[in-house]
Amino acid sequence: MHLSRDLLAKSIQHVFKALSNNSQGILSGLYIYAGNEEVVFRGSNASLTVQYRACVTDSMIHIFREGSIVCPAKYLYEIIRKLNDGNVVLEVNEQLILSIISGNTRVSLSGLSSIDSPFITTPQYHQHSGNSIDVSSNSLKSMIKQVVGAVSTSEAKPILTGVLLEVQESLLTMIATDGVIRMAKRSIWIENGRGFSGNVVIPGINLMEIVRLLDDDEQAMVTIQLNHHEIRFIAQNQIIESVLIEGVYPSTRNLVPTTHVSEIILNIKSFRQVIDRVFVLADYHLITIHVSEKKLELRSSTAEIGDVRDELLLEDKNGANFSITINGKYLLSTLRSIESDSIRIRYAGKKSPLVLIPALEDNTWLFLLNPVMRG
Amino acid sequence: MHLSRDLLAKSIQHVFKALSNNSQGILSGLYIYAGNEEVVFRGSNASLTVQYRACVTDSMIHIFREGSIVCPAKYLYEIIRKLNDGNVVLEVNEQLILSIISGNTRVSLSGLSSIDSPFITTPQYHQHSGNSIDVSSNSLKSMIKQVVGAVSTSEAKPILTGVLLEVQESLLTMIATDGVIRMAKRSIWIENGRGFSGNVVIPGINLMEIVRLLDDDEQAMVTIQLNHHEIRFIAQNQIIESVLIEGVYPSTRNLVPTTHVSEIILNIKSFRQVIDRVFVLADYHLITIHVSEKKLELRSSTAEIGDVRDELLLEDKNGANFSITINGKYLLSTLRSIESDSIRIRYAGKKSPLVLIPALEDNTWLFLLNPVMRG
Repeated sequence: MHLSRDLLAKSIQHVFKALSNNSQGILSGLYIYAGNEEVVFRGSNASLTVQYRACVTDSMIHIFREGSIVCPAKYLYEIIRKLNDGNVVLEVNEQLILSIISGNTRVSLSGLSSIDSPFITTPQYHQHSGNSIDVSSNSLKSMIKQVVGAVSTSEAKPILTGVLLEVQESLLTMIATDGVIRMAKRSIWIENGRGFSGNVVIPGINLMEIVRLLDDDEQAMVTIQLNHHEIRFIAQNQIIESVLIEGVYPSTRNLVPTTHVSEIILNIKSFRQVIDRVFVLADYHLITIHVSEKKLELRSSTAEIGDVRDELLLEDKNGANFSITINGKYLLSTLRSIESDSIRIRYAGKKSPLVLIPALEDNTWLFLLNPVMRG
Repeated sequence: MHLSRDLLAKSIQHVFKALSNNSQGILSGLYIYAGNEEVVFRGSNASLTVQYRACVTDSMIHIFREGSIVCPAKYLYEIIRKLNDGNVVLEVNEQLILSIISGNTRVSLSGLSSIDSPFITTPQYHQHSGNSIDVSSNSLKSMIKQVVGAVSTSEAKPILTGVLLEVQESLLTMIATDGVIRMAKRSIWIENGRGFSGNVVIPGINLMEIVRLLDDDEQAMVTIQLNHHEIRFIAQNQIIESVLIEGVYPSTRNLVPTTHVSEIILNIKSFRQVIDRVFVLADYHLITIHVSEKKLELRSSTAEIGDVRDELLLEDKNGANFSITINGKYLLSTLRSIESDSIRIRYAGKKSPLVLIPALEDNTWLFLLNPVMRG
């Protein structure tokens, strides 16, 4: 087949980068299939599969004969990236050698033994099966970014390295917690809920990759298909499939305090800046927060080096003054994942987690951050 | 003293980055001196010292009292970087605590025990002593970039990890070689030669840092002072001092072949692109070059994976056709360090190094690249 270097490089890069970033096994072979109307590029590791599709009708591709091959991914990626701009000819011969011809450059790459039964885009993937929902690509990316930072990085409880995705008729919720200090939750309404409920746990590391893979296009939609052993994200020109984490996700309903002693509203950007500053001298990442009257004071110190004090005006406050010591690293990463301007923080006592919710009455996200007990 | 956060951050970053990049020991303390007319920032590791100066007359600095302190460099750097824009007040008290005050932010940093006799900019450094030369900052940076890639990375012969800097009246020359495969040489004429000759060997790793530290300003000049145990680069607002490598640098005069069998002229950019491409499949970095008639063909292969062939038109050729196998990695790094458009390559036989010189008659730089013997 003939196609442009740019399209070829873009397609291969899309698949290659997703799978070579991922620590869960190495991508060795990249599968290329030239059909009647499309070229499909596909790669997978033990945990994630990415299939990218270039349509003959959308692009300058000429396919002379149907065919497929699996090539050494890293070499293919490197060589395509370095070709001059212009047209590229790909040919597979009977000895399973891929020839790449572009200008004066002639490359031969040996094919690998074929991947077993690769999935190819076929019309039924786009049909609405019972266990599927449609969400906008941007909402999905925003949800993932908000919760994924709260997953556990320890393999001690594998289930907590995943994000719980819950569909309840028209409500889609994602929850992540490290089981000790942090919990993050975000919900959105699905417009075309198909009346099914279900939940799965997806490896956090795969969701981070999916954020990178999905388009930024405002209009783009993604179909999420839940199956027993995997989840599929089907977009305009790609299908991403992730394994699931087996097991029962712990209930998080009782973690959220039902009452509070005090409540403050803050500008997120200013709050982030002062935390960033006091964090520099925060031994063990500990930052102490004092709320009094209309201001919030932060303190940190490092033994034998020094200390920092900073303060911030509150946008609003209801309830008593309070002091609490928290892990500044987790607070910073939580604040970085919030897209709003302001935040509402509820204090429910020395041993209760801080509750971080939107400043406006709009209960779509919620973070819990447990205090650190000192002494 | 009072000064702007930007100036403070810039000064501290300048000193901090130079010394924390460098693998030769860690920068622990950063020295700050506030004099009558200047603030001096200084840091050093075992091998390199950087002193940066901010003048009271050039900037908005108010010094209330002369004083100095040595602070934990990393913490100082991090905290200053994160302050809000605006004015910063620095104060040292009798307990050797540095207070940093900026808006609502108050930082205390403990001073370290003082560095022994730090050097401060004093007028005599700018006087012309016998063993000094003046060169433009840009020429110096260009020279260093061309030769420094050829130094040895092995500590087996420490002298070869350095660059030979040779002053012969009005000619300044730098030479580097790994003693096996590569040699690089660059000369420039010094306008104000002061009639002295001398040579020193400077650690390559320090020269790489000096390239980053020196201004890009077209007009900027640098005074190079040679002493017995160190070399100093004195610029407008900084002094950089490097240790020297002891020992006798091996003679490189007999390495350059005096005759040649064939000579070709090539466009450097196109040559680099084809090498970049064939390099992807070059086992052990080996690339074979065939020169025939008016073209140059390149080949590489990786066992069991595949091979690449590419070709390039020559701009000119005199002499016989030839074939040679070279290390593509070294050829690429050599070509990347050359600023010209074209290059002249001389072939003097299967066992002689390739000679790379300017295409135009202008003998200011020269590279040698030994062929790789196969079989």
